[in-house]
Amino acid sequence: MSKTGTEPAKRGRPRRGPDPERFAEIVEAAAAVILEKGYSATSIQDIADRIGILKGSLYHYVRSKEDFLYKIIKDVYDEAIADMRSVTEAERAPLEQLAAFVRAHVLFAAKHLVAYTIQLREFDRLSEARRAEIREGGDTYVVVLQRILEEGQREGVIDGAIDPRLASIMITGELNSMTRWYRPDGAKSAEQLADVYSGMIVSSVASEAAVSSAGGIEVLRAAFVQA
Amino acid sequence: MSKTGTEPAKRGRPRRGPDPERFAEIVEAAAAVILEKGYSATSIQDIADRIGILKGSLYHYVRSKEDFLYKIIKDVYDEAIADMRSVTEAERAPLEQLAAFVRAHVLFAAKHLVAYTIQLREFDRLSEARRAEIREGGDTYVVVLQRILEEGQREGVIDGAIDPRLASIMITGELNSMTRWYRPDGAKSAEQLADVYSGMIVSSVASEAAVSSAGGIEVLRAAFVQA
Repeated sequence: MSKTGTEPAKRGRPRRGPDPERFAEIVEAAAAVILEKGYSATSIQDIADRIGILKGSLYHYVRSKEDFLYKIIKDVYDEAIADMRSVTEAERAPLEQLAAFVRAHVLFAAKHLVAYTIQLREFDRLSEARRAEIREGGDTYVVVLQRILEEGQREGVIDGAIDPRLASIMITGELNSMTRWYRPDGAKSAEQLADVYSGMIVSSVASEAAVSSAGGIEVLRAAFVQA
Repeated sequence: MSKTGTEPAKRGRPRRGPDPERFAEIVEAAAAVILEKGYSATSIQDIADRIGILKGSLYHYVRSKEDFLYKIIKDVYDEAIADMRSVTEAERAPLEQLAAFVRAHVLFAAKHLVAYTIQLREFDRLSEARRAEIREGGDTYVVVLQRILEEGQREGVIDGAIDPRLASIMITGELNSMTRWYRPDGAKSAEQLADVYSGMIVSSVASEAAVSSAGGIEVLRAAFVQA
């Protein structure tokens, strides 16, 4: 969103209306409505009502309700991919990489809770072309995680009996499910949840060799606590 | 639903229309529409169209769209509670009980995929009175699981550093997330998924003593494979 703000002013009427900051506010309001009512049940009128402007004014920014959904999902998807890239580019042993992946995923979902939840729930409401375009942006969590588990199996620290693809889908589902109950003002901070998830997930896939060399399962489970 | 069918015929016009089997078919069609479109975006007209009857005919069976949602959720909730009861009533050591819980949950979600998914997604669309009534039916998965983990900690087979409540919420979320990707015609059977989940979840919370006495983490993880 801020990118648009740094572009040189163009002659004539800008395609997306005059004020990118205002657009960002409008998208945020649209996200709040979509989260609350669900995308299908949300109308452009609902979004206008939430902001307190006339419905017609929204058409300075978007051409359709789907444009809002696209903007919300595209932004959070791009940020998630950049976030994952910073995890995978670091040089770490596989179990440390796995814990770093879990931590990054939990902190990201907590920080971008509204948009991330909408992405999980409503991705399929986007047109096929837009879904394809967004997916082209980079590897998903499942693919990144699968590579970490495969590398861990090559190095002998992940149980060789585990199916890396299936385990990646299960673990990603486990992490995504925190969007159903995590609230920023809840009893546990995102950092504390990242600690608990890291320990449980690492111990759920670690090999016998990894557990022994750590000094036992309880030591291994506690090894990634940071908060 | 079949219960109604065994009740003696009453004089006068029955409250819910004349044919409980037909009602069951209608509820099933309603569930398919609600799953596809989302509850908020579904109208009584959509449900009538799916079945191929006039909208007015549906009012022989229900008074509102919410009555469909209530029927779908109440039925699956009651069955899940009965299913959990049969797990908790069996006498088993805590890790075996945990594995039995995971297996029952996975098989139940797979068997009742449509209604269970609707229950997860749309429970909050029910009126407060109906939500309270349904919740009174029995303990939820989270509560049952928490008790198993607490018992396991007392017996020393679950890591004492684990918060049983938080772990129960996380594990339940992990299991529920299978409704996002499991399909009956997919590569893995529900029984195979139950095996993988049991092994990963038991090893994610087992104590050092439990791992040692099983003969190591890989042996423990494989101990609950049945398929």
